[in-house]
Amino acid sequence: MKAAVYESAGVLKLADKERPHVVKPTDAVVRMQKTTICGTDLHILGGDVPACKPGTTLGHEGIGIVEEVGDGVNNFKVGDRVIVSCVTACNTCYYCKHNLPSHCENGGWILGHLIEGTQSEYIHIPQADGSLYHAPDSVNDEALVMLSDILPTAYEIGVLPSHVKPGDTVCIVGAGPIGLSALLSVQFYSPSRIIMVDLSQARLDASREFGATDTVLSTTTEEVKAKIAEMTGGRGVDVVFECVGYPATFDICQNVVSIGGHISNVGVHGKPVTFNLDDLWIKNITLSTGLVNANTTEMLLDVLKSGKIDASKLVTHHFKLSEVEEAYHVFKNAEENHTLKVIIENNITE
Amino acid sequence: MKAAVYESAGVLKLADKERPHVVKPTDAVVRMQKTTICGTDLHILGGDVPACKPGTTLGHEGIGIVEEVGDGVNNFKVGDRVIVSCVTACNTCYYCKHNLPSHCENGGWILGHLIEGTQSEYIHIPQADGSLYHAPDSVNDEALVMLSDILPTAYEIGVLPSHVKPGDTVCIVGAGPIGLSALLSVQFYSPSRIIMVDLSQARLDASREFGATDTVLSTTTEEVKAKIAEMTGGRGVDVVFECVGYPATFDICQNVVSIGGHISNVGVHGKPVTFNLDDLWIKNITLSTGLVNANTTEMLLDVLKSGKIDASKLVTHHFKLSEVEEAYHVFKNAEENHTLKVIIENNITE
Repeated sequence: MKAAVYESAGVLKLADKERPHVVKPTDAVVRMQKTTICGTDLHILGGDVPACKPGTTLGHEGIGIVEEVGDGVNNFKVGDRVIVSCVTACNTCYYCKHNLPSHCENGGWILGHLIEGTQSEYIHIPQADGSLYHAPDSVNDEALVMLSDILPTAYEIGVLPSHVKPGDTVCIVGAGPIGLSALLSVQFYSPSRIIMVDLSQARLDASREFGATDTVLSTTTEEVKAKIAEMTGGRGVDVVFECVGYPATFDICQNVVSIGGHISNVGVHGKPVTFNLDDLWIKNITLSTGLVNANTTEMLLDVLKSGKIDASKLVTHHFKLSEVEEAYHVFKNAEENHTLKVIIENNITE
Repeated sequence: MKAAVYESAGVLKLADKERPHVVKPTDAVVRMQKTTICGTDLHILGGDVPACKPGTTLGHEGIGIVEEVGDGVNNFKVGDRVIVSCVTACNTCYYCKHNLPSHCENGGWILGHLIEGTQSEYIHIPQADGSLYHAPDSVNDEALVMLSDILPTAYEIGVLPSHVKPGDTVCIVGAGPIGLSALLSVQFYSPSRIIMVDLSQARLDASREFGATDTVLSTTTEEVKAKIAEMTGGRGVDVVFECVGYPATFDICQNVVSIGGHISNVGVHGKPVTFNLDDLWIKNITLSTGLVNANTTEMLLDVLKSGKIDASKLVTHHFKLSEVEEAYHVFKNAEENHTLKVIIENNITE
């Protein structure tokens, strides 16, 4: 079969791989229908994720059809259409029992990282009961693919720990796919204002279509702080989501949060940040970080079914699996291509 | 009357001040019986709190008898015995209505800071209904003085936002008065282990009498981290309280917190800290900061009445108001004097 393989630093190739089969009774094998590329895949290609070895098939998102199941799988049978979650949960280890399957001792984020990923014709899924979700026909395929990672990440790591309330003022730093997913899902709670901050005016303009009420073109922290202070009567915002992962974007967050406010760190950071505790110790703020647990996937599926949000709006480009190298090129050069999420359809499997 | 006055950097003198009287209808005047000294008073003397001007009477803690009340005071009358809270709340401003009286626009922490303090024969109390609490005879005076600031601070800023649960493992960095107060009040929730970390073996030994189950003499972050990892099966602690206020002590906290854990910052910081988001973004941690709101004062009073904890154990030294300069000396040199909290009794007023 064909698969998108991380060959070496910077090199992604569509290559031949052996088709997987069930090995353990808790396994399934899924024939992929649609998948996508995540910023994390680019981090792997950039050599930033040393645990992912060259030769690994990338991808941890997508939908498909169950082709094989082991005898120990309770909830899925051959022919079921499924969402593949980015998190594999054994449901039996210390972290799973503490509701932190992101840190599952027998899973966690392993697809396209420690084991073969979803950008492939077929994928081997361990702990199938803790990694797959039934995909209803009533939600469009592209929205379902957004349930593998980006929507639960934005909701669980951005929105939920912020305890955002109706009427609150929200700031989202970073109007990329994850920031826009946070923008979609924060609207479940009816905030009064959602201020997007980004370096790209094109992304800010796009964010208006996703529900942003205000936009700030990011310059210096001091200028962003001054603009947001002006918008909020000097108080700052009730909640702010860091959706980028750099010291500079974290710095904006800590400068615009109000007394009693919350900072949700969603971005993946490669460096420590300077945290202004000399300013913030007195301000009664809270802060949260985390990797998605994907334990809201079914809840978010109910939201998608209800039509409250249209997650397929995140998809800007479409490719076939045979074109996956081009898909990476377009995703990587997001600024010039106005790329958010790409959909890659498996056109190879007969 | 006599009062302990911040005269200039490093200089505290027992000086003459004019006795206060009610000015506004929401005011009260209290004859102080007992007060204490806070680490913050030392910060003021050190010149670290420029908003506090030389000539100010220090102190924001204590108990006394109401001598005068304005017509607008609802809950107190002349002769009532009261606890003076460190936080003055108007109960009408934006922050008070958002349950953040620490940031009250007509109060907050003003006693011994922006207005005259409690280390005096008499004190003028604005917004008396939002600053005083009835002092029951069933709780001893010294414990009541601990309700002005240190117990609510440890509880509201350390314990409450940590959401500590029965069976949890707790680490408290700093075994001074605030760390020991956190140690007392975290026991309301029956954690299984409480590990104290401090530079002083004497304080660690004392913390055993307050309920610590384990102690770690602080050396390098790496050594403390290794010891706590060994105690916790490699996982780290569920909650950690920063009760010092230095980058080095914050660093210990971020290195010992478990996946899914919480850092409560109680310490007052004068410098930014390095926050290891490159390590912590993935660990699903939460962090909180804050100034005490004193909105748990009555709840904590109920706890003291029940005998669940004995807050008077925090008191190690006794002085008269006429000896306040000596009291500061002993409090400042806490290490050599084994000082925790000092009680200063008003022996001057006839």
